[in-house]
Amino acid sequence: MKIPFNKPYFTGKEIENIADAFAIGKICGNGKYTKLCQEFFKSHSGFRHALLTTSCTDALEMSALLTDLKPGDEVIIPSYTFVSTANAFALRGAKIRFAESHADQPNIDESKIEELITPKTRAIVPVHYAGVACKMDTILAIAKKHNLLVAEDSAQGIASFFVDADGKRHPLGGIGDFASFSFHETKNIVSGEGGMLVVNNPDYVKRSEIIWEKGTNRSAFFRGETDKYGWVDVGSSFLPSEMIAAFLYAQLENMDRIQARRVAIWEQYYRELAPLQAKGCLRMPTIPSYATNNAHMFYILSNTLKDGSGLIDHLKKHEVSAVFHYPSLHQSKYYQDKHDGRHLPNSDKFADTLVRLPLYYDLTDQEVDFICKEIKKYFGD
Amino acid sequence: MKIPFNKPYFTGKEIENIADAFAIGKICGNGKYTKLCQEFFKSHSGFRHALLTTSCTDALEMSALLTDLKPGDEVIIPSYTFVSTANAFALRGAKIRFAESHADQPNIDESKIEELITPKTRAIVPVHYAGVACKMDTILAIAKKHNLLVAEDSAQGIASFFVDADGKRHPLGGIGDFASFSFHETKNIVSGEGGMLVVNNPDYVKRSEIIWEKGTNRSAFFRGETDKYGWVDVGSSFLPSEMIAAFLYAQLENMDRIQARRVAIWEQYYRELAPLQAKGCLRMPTIPSYATNNAHMFYILSNTLKDGSGLIDHLKKHEVSAVFHYPSLHQSKYYQDKHDGRHLPNSDKFADTLVRLPLYYDLTDQEVDFICKEIKKYFGD
Repeated sequence: MKIPFNKPYFTGKEIENIADAFAIGKICGNGKYTKLCQEFFKSHSGFRHALLTTSCTDALEMSALLTDLKPGDEVIIPSYTFVSTANAFALRGAKIRFAESHADQPNIDESKIEELITPKTRAIVPVHYAGVACKMDTILAIAKKHNLLVAEDSAQGIASFFVDADGKRHPLGGIGDFASFSFHETKNIVSGEGGMLVVNNPDYVKRSEIIWEKGTNRSAFFRGETDKYGWVDVGSSFLPSEMIAAFLYAQLENMDRIQARRVAIWEQYYRELAPLQAKGCLRMPTIPSYATNNAHMFYILSNTLKDGSGLIDHLKKHEVSAVFHYPSLHQSKYYQDKHDGRHLPNSDKFADTLVRLPLYYDLTDQEVDFICKEIKKYFGD
Repeated sequence: MKIPFNKPYFTGKEIENIADAFAIGKICGNGKYTKLCQEFFKSHSGFRHALLTTSCTDALEMSALLTDLKPGDEVIIPSYTFVSTANAFALRGAKIRFAESHADQPNIDESKIEELITPKTRAIVPVHYAGVACKMDTILAIAKKHNLLVAEDSAQGIASFFVDADGKRHPLGGIGDFASFSFHETKNIVSGEGGMLVVNNPDYVKRSEIIWEKGTNRSAFFRGETDKYGWVDVGSSFLPSEMIAAFLYAQLENMDRIQARRVAIWEQYYRELAPLQAKGCLRMPTIPSYATNNAHMFYILSNTLKDGSGLIDHLKKHEVSAVFHYPSLHQSKYYQDKHDGRHLPNSDKFADTLVRLPLYYDLTDQEVDFICKEIKKYFGD
């Protein structure tokens, strides 16, 4: 494939940081680079508490543990999302109430959340698809009214914002009670596999540390807050190796440069493909006025499944990798007989027609131009 | 501290492998080095199936998921073990029946397992403490008789064996239905944080892949065994980054050399300290005839808690870090009110008197000699 769908970007500093971690001689978790990364997010994004994890999946599992679900408890999650969003809560025995997407973009339709709430509902999990903010003011108001937790799935949401009615920008991941980020190699800022849990609600900071440290009070012990270190709660080993953190820190230090290039690529795609929307060949991505664009993803919406498949095949013939994204989770083999039977046509539509185009730091203007020309050719333009 | 308790050993090849993984451009999970590591264990140790994980804790959680526990199901686990052994099963809602250690060494006393079995028992989790084999023939016979799964906790068990009545050696981790290994930086072979699940029972291979791949049939899909890739089961993101695997592979290629040095250190400790046992000052580690010694750990057993604490303090004054190990889990804050009230005096005795001495590849003969001399001084010898 001449133009892959993704290619992780290396700043050049990663190997140097890793060698430094080796020289320090601490390569398990929670060392110098883990602390540097966590501090970066606290000072850069104003997050109250940040804990690196081995994946966003694991951060979501920490959110589910913090939600303290009892059997039969329910959680509201969009159907058009990665399997981990739902899996993390299913592992805790929760019943997933799958929510519908907006008609014009894949994020959860906040106007259809309230009808899913029952006395057993415990949490809402808004997923900021493509780094585009969900309507967080409405979601927070619903959560407050019904006494629910909000666990943002901000896997794709780094360096993006929700803009409130007063025009104030709130960094994604800093809004709900908890939030999860991904640094998987397909994301804007990467560490191979990797993630982070953010805890914004102060009531959950202490327990998040315990769950992170395998259910022990190790952190409090080392701060001298308790005289005995032992098993006090459920938990797991969520800490990544210092190698992962050292790699990540190199990326974070270059975040502005990485973001600027990604936004430029995104805008080139938009500029070159917008005429196809005017002609009715496809639809362009929608970014609501209350959201910003972190250029995590460039996608187009085909008119039909056949149209999208044809486009993917056409690009493949020209050695360009474009791909569909998620199938609807309420239709999955695992969940279809557990689902309550509601139709979620918007979710299904995005499953059938959302085609993602290559977007990575090293993608050149010429390559973007080549891809756009081939898309135009496919649509007979 | 002049002589730390642990110091991870670097073969020198790790950074080269990591740079190679970067050059390949795939740094998420399940790439070249993950496959090389997994193949190493299959060919070197004869394991049927091996899956790298982000930690031994995560491998234990995979074992617990494969055990498919229902609420109220019971699992038998030694009380003298790391919190993760129990946590992994507690997370699945299991009731832990804590088992007693042998009088002369910390492994589970196989003669006291059967009395803990009820109609709700589903699995036995033998922990090969210090890399010394549990009596696996007896444990397998009990499991077979009562139709239970055996999930070895082989966190410390690399390159060690159970020797059967015919003198045949069986690698630890290759005996039970599943087994978990740790590559945490304190182990013989390390990757910072890291672990591995081994699946020996063929009935569980397929599901182990699904659970590893976030509950999806991705592996089967890429082998062309199914035409649809989606959510089919619970699961999580258990794959480590290729960075971790690249590091680990450098260590595996040097396993024999690492093991030889560790064994030499262990034997030097034994030689120099054995006279203190003859004098009644302490007890030396016991390795049963059915077990081998992988030199994961050198410990002594003090006569009393006070004696052990005093020894640790004495060594600390001479800048040597020696440490106790686990508190009994049945006495932990989290489990004491869930425990069935049985006294487990052997487990408690090891919690109070087992003192671990520094043991790492770079520890010199002179340093071991220094430590032994200080121990002798402490005992007035």
